[in-house]
Amino acid sequence: MTHTGSSKLWDSINAANEVFVAAYNRGDAAGLAALYTEDGQMLAPNAPLMTGREAVQGFWQAVMDMGIEKAAIFTGEVEGHGTTAIEVSNYKLFGAGDQELDQGKFIVIWKKVDGDWKLHRDIFNSSNPAPE
Amino acid sequence: MTHTGSSKLWDSINAANEVFVAAYNRGDAAGLAALYTEDGQMLAPNAPLMTGREAVQGFWQAVMDMGIEKAAIFTGEVEGHGTTAIEVSNYKLFGAGDQELDQGKFIVIWKKVDGDWKLHRDIFNSSNPAPE
Repeated sequence: MTHTGSSKLWDSINAANEVFVAAYNRGDAAGLAALYTEDGQMLAPNAPLMTGREAVQGFWQAVMDMGIEKAAIFTGEVEGHGTTAIEVSNYKLFGAGDQELDQGKFIVIWKKVDGDWKLHRDIFNSSNPAPE
Repeated sequence: MTHTGSSKLWDSINAANEVFVAAYNRGDAAGLAALYTEDGQMLAPNAPLMTGREAVQGFWQAVMDMGIEKAAIFTGEVEGHGTTAIEVSNYKLFGAGDQELDQGKFIVIWKKVDGDWKLHRDIFNSSNPAPE
């Protein structure tokens, strides 16, 4: 994917993604939730829309409890509009022994709150074929 | 979901969604593709990222060929940034006899091109439980 907008913005979102992945990879669902806005929304596959940090924390804890041990993000396109940024990127999820369990794509709408970029809207889906 | 931004913008995106649904419901995959930007991207579940109107047309044709006869969109949150709009909404898909086959949520990034709102980035996923 291409990089849109200033590379400084891209660097900021990429750095925020690194913080996100570090929280995931240490199993810190509360830490992940704190990276969302207070009214942040998770639009996850096969689940209703979830709103707020408590719901977001519960979602990520459930993902961890499924045995998804590690996440990776590959920052793609980032487009800035003041305190809003639109990101189109790819992810991978890994289980025990670094086995790749899923890979897909996502869009995150970021909001800059008190100087920090926070996830405000988060939607993803798998790029792997549907289970038979 | 709440409405964000001017209600005029919400009305414009809601009207664009009505055009989209009308094209879908008459089985016009080419007409749907024409509603996207030239470098529009479809981020569909269980498929790689698709770029461009030809790919978008092929995707929607395949969805129609699966027996999904009708679509409905429930316009939710619309946030404007000049010639960019961010939409968070819900959809339903119907088969023969108006049977509901799927319901879910999506984010579309719209771009205003020559006075018309075009879908630029389109990602969705089901809110139904995963097939067992």
